[in-house]
Amino acid sequence: TQLEHLEAHTAGKKLKVGFSAGLTDSGVVGPFDQETTLIFSKTVVNVGLGYNQSAGISVFTAPVRGFYFFSFTAADYLKGYTGLHLYRNEEPVFFSLELNDHGGYASTCSSMALQLEAGDRVRLSLPASYRLYDDSRNFSVFSGFLLFPL
Amino acid sequence: TQLEHLEAHTAGKKLKVGFSAGLTDSGVVGPFDQETTLIFSKTVVNVGLGYNQSAGISVFTAPVRGFYFFSFTAADYLKGYTGLHLYRNEEPVFFSLELNDHGGYASTCSSMALQLEAGDRVRLSLPASYRLYDDSRNFSVFSGFLLFPL
Amino acid sequence: TQLEHLEAHTAGKKLKVGFSAGLTDSGVVGPFDQETTLIFSKTVVNVGLGYNQSAGISVFTAPVRGFYFFSFTAADYLKGYTGLHLYRNEEPVFFSLELNDHGGYASTCSSMALQLEAGDRVRLSLPASYRLYDDSRNFSVFSGFLLFPL
Repeated sequence: TQLEHLEAHTAGKKLKVGFSAGLTDSGVVGPFDQETTLIFSKTVVNVGLGYNQSAGISVFTAPVRGFYFFSFTAADYLKGYTGLHLYRNEEPVFFSLELNDHGGYASTCSSMALQLEAGDRVRLSLPASYRLYDDSRNFSVFSGFLLFPL
Repeated sequence: TQLEHLEAHTAGKKLKVGFSAGLTDSGVVGPFDQETTLIFSKTVVNVGLGYNQSAGISVFTAPVRGFYFFSFTAADYLKGYTGLHLYRNEEPVFFSLELNDHGGYASTCSSMALQLEAGDRVRLSLPASYRLYDDSRNFSVFSGFLLFPL
Repeated sequence: TQLEHLEAHTAGKKLKVGFSAGLTDSGVVGPFDQETTLIFSKTVVNVGLGYNQSAGISVFTAPVRGFYFFSFTAADYLKGYTGLHLYRNEEPVFFSLELNDHGGYASTCSSMALQLEAGDRVRLSLPASYRLYDDSRNFSVFSGFLLFPL
């Protein structure tokens, strides 16, 4: 279980926590009528088991109070807006977006260090009417890790 | 004080240093007639007290010689250039910029690992005639952390 | 040698591994007739000696199994596509690209956490017909580091 994993880690010298995931191999995601928390279904790495999918969304749950770093890239190839909100629990923390006015590929990315409390949940949300694209090449990706506990 | 904080840290097993900040809740920053070091006034996290505002600018001062990682995102929604130079002391280290030719939201981001000496100062500078936008959603952000001392 | 360096590190308490590099001071890179692994020739920092240039390409070789983080920014100022594939050995892992339809500066960036095995090689590749630009200001950059061994 996650708790056992955490206990094993904290008994040792360093708590190892981090993940990354790609959005999908299935192409277009959105647009939706309302803002929608996404599933980044292609888990690439998940150390410490903080990153999980439940209730139709992907959520990273902080196992300890600490200093974390998160980054994401949102891509699309049709005209219109692409972008993502990163949420800590119910609070939007940072946002990146881009208008694609040419219909070729475009992307936007952002990253930010955050202090989280144990149990804080981090997720990415697509604004209403926005779109994302991904395939096996991993255009739209999400990563995070614990730098140190506090 | 910062020195006491540093001594407490180095007496322990790991030096914990990192910060993040959003630019402003007040909307547009710039354009200025000359290149201008910015204040990222919304400090989100500041562990180790390396990130401070003084003399009208935001500066991260490295507490020890080490391997650091920095990232920023610059956003705007009017036609023209947005972008930022990251400086180490008086030396520009890396630069990211983007022409917005459509007047919708656009952003540019970059990140880079750097070796800093104790006392090195890192800051972000807006080129002359460039603009940035930010509000409570944190479009324009700046983060950095120490990965390990050297 | 790299092996001695690694042994010295592992005898101590923390393995210190990370690098960053800018692409070139010489301006335009590409377009090429086929996808081409690049040389990011301006090494800014290289701790642990994982980052090297050989056989005309730049490669980061993981000294140990672990959790790594990589980021890159690709910039250009002419119309057409810019972008980069990050490869782990012979496998493309993630990709970021952007159509520049205005002929001003534009850039695209991405970052991702990856689990690597000892000896895994990470490199950046420019797709056929794509272009990059860099000069002394470091528009196009590549960084990576080990967060923890596994």
